[in-house]
Amino acid sequence: MTSTRTPLSSLAPDELARFLADKQAAYADLQARGLKLDLTRGKPSSAQLDLSGELLNLPTTTKDRAGADVRNYGGLEGLTELREIFAELLWVDVDQVTCQGNSSLSLMHQALSYLLLWGGPDSERPWRDEPSVKFVCPVPGYDRHFSMLADFGIEMVTVPMNDNGPDVAAVADLVRDDPSVKGMWIVPTYANPTGSVVSEDVAAELMAMPTAAPDFRIFWDNAYAFHHLTEHEAKSADALSLAQASGHPNRPIMFASTSKITFAGAGVSVLAASTANKTWFLRHLAMGSIGPDKINHLRHVEFFGSADGVRQHMRRHREIIAPKFAAVDAALTAELDGLGIAEWTRPTGGYFVNLDVLDGTATRVVDLAKQAGIALTPAGASFPHGQDPRDRNIRLAPTFPQLDEVETAMAGVATCVALAAAEQLSK
Amino acid sequence: MTSTRTPLSSLAPDELARFLADKQAAYADLQARGLKLDLTRGKPSSAQLDLSGELLNLPTTTKDRAGADVRNYGGLEGLTELREIFAELLWVDVDQVTCQGNSSLSLMHQALSYLLLWGGPDSERPWRDEPSVKFVCPVPGYDRHFSMLADFGIEMVTVPMNDNGPDVAAVADLVRDDPSVKGMWIVPTYANPTGSVVSEDVAAELMAMPTAAPDFRIFWDNAYAFHHLTEHEAKSADALSLAQASGHPNRPIMFASTSKITFAGAGVSVLAASTANKTWFLRHLAMGSIGPDKINHLRHVEFFGSADGVRQHMRRHREIIAPKFAAVDAALTAELDGLGIAEWTRPTGGYFVNLDVLDGTATRVVDLAKQAGIALTPAGASFPHGQDPRDRNIRLAPTFPQLDEVETAMAGVATCVALAAAEQLSK
Repeated sequence: MTSTRTPLSSLAPDELARFLADKQAAYADLQARGLKLDLTRGKPSSAQLDLSGELLNLPTTTKDRAGADVRNYGGLEGLTELREIFAELLWVDVDQVTCQGNSSLSLMHQALSYLLLWGGPDSERPWRDEPSVKFVCPVPGYDRHFSMLADFGIEMVTVPMNDNGPDVAAVADLVRDDPSVKGMWIVPTYANPTGSVVSEDVAAELMAMPTAAPDFRIFWDNAYAFHHLTEHEAKSADALSLAQASGHPNRPIMFASTSKITFAGAGVSVLAASTANKTWFLRHLAMGSIGPDKINHLRHVEFFGSADGVRQHMRRHREIIAPKFAAVDAALTAELDGLGIAEWTRPTGGYFVNLDVLDGTATRVVDLAKQAGIALTPAGASFPHGQDPRDRNIRLAPTFPQLDEVETAMAGVATCVALAAAEQLSK
Repeated sequence: MTSTRTPLSSLAPDELARFLADKQAAYADLQARGLKLDLTRGKPSSAQLDLSGELLNLPTTTKDRAGADVRNYGGLEGLTELREIFAELLWVDVDQVTCQGNSSLSLMHQALSYLLLWGGPDSERPWRDEPSVKFVCPVPGYDRHFSMLADFGIEMVTVPMNDNGPDVAAVADLVRDDPSVKGMWIVPTYANPTGSVVSEDVAAELMAMPTAAPDFRIFWDNAYAFHHLTEHEAKSADALSLAQASGHPNRPIMFASTSKITFAGAGVSVLAASTANKTWFLRHLAMGSIGPDKINHLRHVEFFGSADGVRQHMRRHREIIAPKFAAVDAALTAELDGLGIAEWTRPTGGYFVNLDVLDGTATRVVDLAKQAGIALTPAGASFPHGQDPRDRNIRLAPTFPQLDEVETAMAGVATCVALAAAEQLSK
């Protein structure tokens, strides 16, 4: 739809004053409704969790395919039959895959801990013994990546996140000469929060670029690899093969999980990497584990049946959540299209809509929404240390509420965006 | 039974030669049987795992007592109703308890990682920034504690393990003046492998003793707290209260799990500590976890029902494994009693029998057994770096094999012990 509205910044003063008064009235009405809605976190809804209800009655046996008793100790790599399913889904070899417990965030925390305490297979020393360690952070990005880095005392250097992935020229500049730049995080498919998909070209450049650090790591967090919102199902770039072909086989470590496939709190996690990386990871993991929860592995194997079982299951998720994403777009379009005060993504997968409002108003929008009973993720959450330099970014998470709640909440959010912009422009 | 045998070291040369020849013949017979038996690891048997079979059909609901959906994210501390059960069993306050995933070994690895990377709430700096870090290790002890310390680059200083716990005078001497001695591991109840139970007095001294390090930690690994082999059920010393009373509330961190209660590979773990320690632990844990597998928590809550449900369940374990421990004692007594070449424990709980053979023969015994098809834990495994200075200690793990296999294997082991001793004394 093409809007016939006049951009807010082009309004005459009296027109702007009238717009502001309209929005103040609309906001007063909104507040009077006493809403209590929450768009803060990317959580699956009850209806999505119900799709995996059968898991609660599984497994039907206690032996894995090799005849091992899944109830007992052992099997550090995870069940082979589960590893096979994820190898197929992630386009990697089963030998490159280990499956562990709930969750991939834990695997990332472990991998980073091991790098700090021991260094990787190609490190000159433990990262903790380096004068400083920096990570490249595409922004906006996932708040938990940033908070983990902050807790580890790792300095964050930002680069823009584009539609086809991180700004690869900016990344290459940062890593070329500074050996303290040790790694970066990427959500390659349907990124949190922008929904971008890293193209094969960008992935190839990231895997090939020269780095001053001999042990540069890309944490390839493929959390939404299978989480399509349309019939166009993006295929993740083949990071491990690209890295191998470029002579940097140990650069990427790939992570995935079923947290947003089966049960968010009781899923299985996946790490895929070069032989050297995987051996290194399992050697340290073995010091603190006699094996993952293999019953839950078998439970998932029986539930999915195959990689195709996962794909079909994800289509059932899509049926539930795609209308919620459409509702976000519809509400924002209805209220804001053409006003020149907001841009938002129409993601084809993942869990988030990225909303950029008028510079300097994101905090105000979140505050207005809160006072109207609509909880949004704090402004700036998608930036290191929660600091959005332009104060314009808001992450919307529409999966958890019911569809009608999303509609109501987003209409309210759109009112808040318009009001905050009018306030700002009237100053 | 009182033996009328002559100690082997008192035999005349021709008597010793005859004894050696007898044992060589017995060993030849043993080898000829082509056994294939395994006493290496403390694993529950299938019959024990079957006791928890009902878990596979649980939980029957998806809400915890507070109404939260256990399938979704959240609840970092673990289910309150599970924490209550373990608080009662461990004689601590529910506020001191967090429940996590499989396993307590992972919690210990995490706690040690956090101490190295960040230090504890009362540390002057991260342990990793200290010139060196040492741990006091009662020996014989648990091999996985030692291998974890070795991997972390922590130096191990040994003290003897007595019937009532670690030699507390030796410990006090080590910790008094050396600030690099940062901690120790204790298995307080039915220790691995000696079966010792730390007395209330020893526990009180350990919690009260002056330490040069302001952030000295006792990893109180209560893995066998409820694993009684007789009707006399040992009560673990109340480490947290003793530490609090001594003015060192943060000294102990208590660990437990259901690995040897329900499913070894799919249990729940427990950490109990002071408020400062628990807050510190959860703060770092939160960087790598959005919550433990709460479905498995609820599964265990429904299965046990209460703390008393756990106690009753452990009595069913006892019925299965106590005869195996009796068989170990019977076989060793029948072959070795009175010969003065071996001592062994008759544990009242836990998972192991500690066998001390003639000095300098443990490696030979394990090798003889191996050649007769009986796998034993490597000699020295219960010492740091696998080095038993007297080469006399063997850890026996009788729970996993069937009772008749334990009888057969242990008769064979006794033959190997006698043969190795006769060889040694004949040199």
